[in-house]
Amino acid sequence: MSVHLRPEEIEAESFRMIDAEVGPHPWSPSEWPVVRRVIHTSADFEYSRSMFFSADAVFRGVEALRKGRGIVTDTTMAYSGISKVRREKFGNGISCFVADPEVAREARSQGITRSILAMRKGAADQDNGIFVIGNAPTALFELLRLVRQEGLRPDLVIGLPVGFVGAAESKNALLALEAEYPQIPFITNRGRKGGSNVAAAIVNALLIMAEEG
Amino acid sequence: MSVHLRPEEIEAESFRMIDAEVGPHPWSPSEWPVVRRVIHTSADFEYSRSMFFSADAVFRGVEALRKGRGIVTDTTMAYSGISKVRREKFGNGISCFVADPEVAREARSQGITRSILAMRKGAADQDNGIFVIGNAPTALFELLRLVRQEGLRPDLVIGLPVGFVGAAESKNALLALEAEYPQIPFITNRGRKGGSNVAAAIVNALLIMAEEG
Repeated sequence: MSVHLRPEEIEAESFRMIDAEVGPHPWSPSEWPVVRRVIHTSADFEYSRSMFFSADAVFRGVEALRKGRGIVTDTTMAYSGISKVRREKFGNGISCFVADPEVAREARSQGITRSILAMRKGAADQDNGIFVIGNAPTALFELLRLVRQEGLRPDLVIGLPVGFVGAAESKNALLALEAEYPQIPFITNRGRKGGSNVAAAIVNALLIMAEEG
Repeated sequence: MSVHLRPEEIEAESFRMIDAEVGPHPWSPSEWPVVRRVIHTSADFEYSRSMFFSADAVFRGVEALRKGRGIVTDTTMAYSGISKVRREKFGNGISCFVADPEVAREARSQGITRSILAMRKGAADQDNGIFVIGNAPTALFELLRLVRQEGLRPDLVIGLPVGFVGAAESKNALLALEAEYPQIPFITNRGRKGGSNVAAAIVNALLIMAEEG
């Protein structure tokens, strides 16, 4: 029975099924492995139409991973979902400050979300360049503020907040970055869907590409 | 702007939007908060039709949580996604053995998946009663084997593997449990979708009910 296949065979078979069901698509050879892994993680074919990559985002993201640039996530789920084994091959550090006691204290005293302060803390470390947001619109809005007002220049933004209040709006704001700051690569999707699992899957797809070269 | 709402206001507003978009539905007053939180986590309304609860699953799950029964997850993402603060109120332990070095060694030597051995290890501890599977069909198949062949009687099974090979089949096998073992409560969905984020959201919904009820 199919579930007795080895994990790598299950993945290959899954990819064959996704290829067959999606059929002809507009994605470039570097973008498709990312979109396909998102569909693999979510079983949701809507991503085959809703994903968006800024120019050369995959190439630039792979390059940043190979350079060992640090990864910042907005949730511990995204943190957990990014392959430790693959990440450690390139020495990419990873951090998530949303549960940090100092961040919690500051958030209370300033009356703003922990997600905002967690992003700020992650961005303050010069070793960090890859920002992965799978949940909080406020984290993505804060990252965009850091770009516009404080000169932050991320190596890659993976922005896929999910939800009903602010998620789609935060991704529209990210999409607007392309015209303003064409040198900042980003990967996102349109609409309400997204999530920490999907954001982590994108990083994993890029890590596999970084390895395979 | 809406993102300046406090987190609890954002959630309430999201729930109002979900209620309005779903409209009349067949879920009971105890099931709906679970389905709604799954939609909130995924922004995917398909769950408003594809979820399935065995008789009294929510009531029995809430009861098991209140008794402090241990939680076993198949992925570190599901582990991370379950609210630590809420869980600790009832003293529910949590474990995930998929990255356990002993499990990895055994999996290699026996030629079976780590997910299978991780479930087996979780089930061996009598304090564990709540099994949360958001990724691996093999973990869910193994749990069902433990029920049938080794007399395991979980307090609750949350089975939502995602994917293209084995996921829907593993959930069909779980659905078949209802006729065979009507005393084992479970929550699942039909089809390929699912995921660690969704499985964790179900536990969080039950934890909130355990607290409020």
